[in-house]
Amino acid sequence: MAFKENKKLPHFEEYIPHLAYDSVIFGFNGRQIKILLLEYHNTGLFALPGGFVKRNEHLDDAVKRGLKGRTGLDNIYLEQFHTFGDTTRAAPEVMRTIIEANKMEIEEGNWLLDRFISVAYYALINYDDVHPIPDELSDSINWYAIDELPSLMMDHEKIVEKALKTLRENLDKKLTGTNLLPPKFTMKDLQHLYEAILGEELRRTTFQRKMLGTNILMRHEKLFGGGAHKAPYLYSFKTIGDG
Amino acid sequence: MAFKENKKLPHFEEYIPHLAYDSVIFGFNGRQIKILLLEYHNTGLFALPGGFVKRNEHLDDAVKRGLKGRTGLDNIYLEQFHTFGDTTRAAPEVMRTIIEANKMEIEEGNWLLDRFISVAYYALINYDDVHPIPDELSDSINWYAIDELPSLMMDHEKIVEKALKTLRENLDKKLTGTNLLPPKFTMKDLQHLYEAILGEELRRTTFQRKMLGTNILMRHEKLFGGGAHKAPYLYSFKTIGDG
Repeated sequence: MAFKENKKLPHFEEYIPHLAYDSVIFGFNGRQIKILLLEYHNTGLFALPGGFVKRNEHLDDAVKRGLKGRTGLDNIYLEQFHTFGDTTRAAPEVMRTIIEANKMEIEEGNWLLDRFISVAYYALINYDDVHPIPDELSDSINWYAIDELPSLMMDHEKIVEKALKTLRENLDKKLTGTNLLPPKFTMKDLQHLYEAILGEELRRTTFQRKMLGTNILMRHEKLFGGGAHKAPYLYSFKTIGDG
Repeated sequence: MAFKENKKLPHFEEYIPHLAYDSVIFGFNGRQIKILLLEYHNTGLFALPGGFVKRNEHLDDAVKRGLKGRTGLDNIYLEQFHTFGDTTRAAPEVMRTIIEANKMEIEEGNWLLDRFISVAYYALINYDDVHPIPDELSDSINWYAIDELPSLMMDHEKIVEKALKTLRENLDKKLTGTNLLPPKFTMKDLQHLYEAILGEELRRTTFQRKMLGTNILMRHEKLFGGGAHKAPYLYSFKTIGDG
């Protein structure tokens, strides 16, 4: 959750009650998949970056607004993957802890203490392009490796799990159009990306055969440097219109 | 939308405001894919069956409740596929038309005239198992072939389109566990199902080779009757634990 507006609590009149979004922002650094997490001031609570939807705002625009506010990034690949509507999501004590740790007050019956349904999105971005911007209420926003996440508040671990499951399905299609790799990359670079997302090591020969079979890659010149016969080919993702 | 409770308008206190669900219920009759649609009394308005979520109800349970109320079916394969959060979804005049056609009154500012975010689900069921139950406010609920749908109200056509797109992705995985075919079926039965969902004719030899390659089918005895050398094999979907 985010309370950026003037360091005041978001007001009921401005937002759709009971509705939130959460975003799972995957970053890749060439070796590891990481996720962007907020840590709330003096609470030890870690959370996915999320927020609320304004009364006259498209749901997708609310998520883009939140993401831009925290990463400075525009126009990134955002996909809605699931809406979490469990009744056990109501967590007034968590909200109260966060607000009180920030020396603000919240009255009984405030809409922020209600049950929230959360629409979850994921994004896949290049780790190096992002300079996280701390939230007004959070003392840190940082990248965490997916295999070394701290405990997350509420059902946020479940949300990350579902995001990862969704990302791993149809991975070939999902990587095209992202900037997780440079425009031209080697088969080894691509394998590292797959291994990081799938969380397992892959056999080089099998991987190469499979990828060349998907028809999503275009082959270019060899990588400059080293002995010519050893230099690996460079590839790029095909875009629409490529043969 | 559904107003089954005592023929009165659903009350604000009982439901989460601004939140609705819509369900795209696909049925198969051996040849054609159909969708269940409501037609509202004296309005000419066609809609997907949908409804509201009670304040203390799990989102998934609300959808199951609505579906059971209209089809009598329990325990069917329901998958959430997208949440529609466009600001243009607000449609007070449509709601007013439906309510007034039913000789009920709605006051200015009633929560039903607000903007709604709708979480959409699809279900895949066997056409023959279902006896639609008319909604209190609807004069008919019927099956319509997907290529002969009437105009739908609000953004319901967009919702159907997205449901169909989702269904067509990873179809092999999605059919396992459904009851769209009898427990044992021929390759021809299976091909008809694929053709109905994909909306295109498939080549028999290519289809058979592809399906046998997916490893989702188990082969049984030949279909009884006819010359033995012509009788087709019967198949079933593998369940977990089958070889």
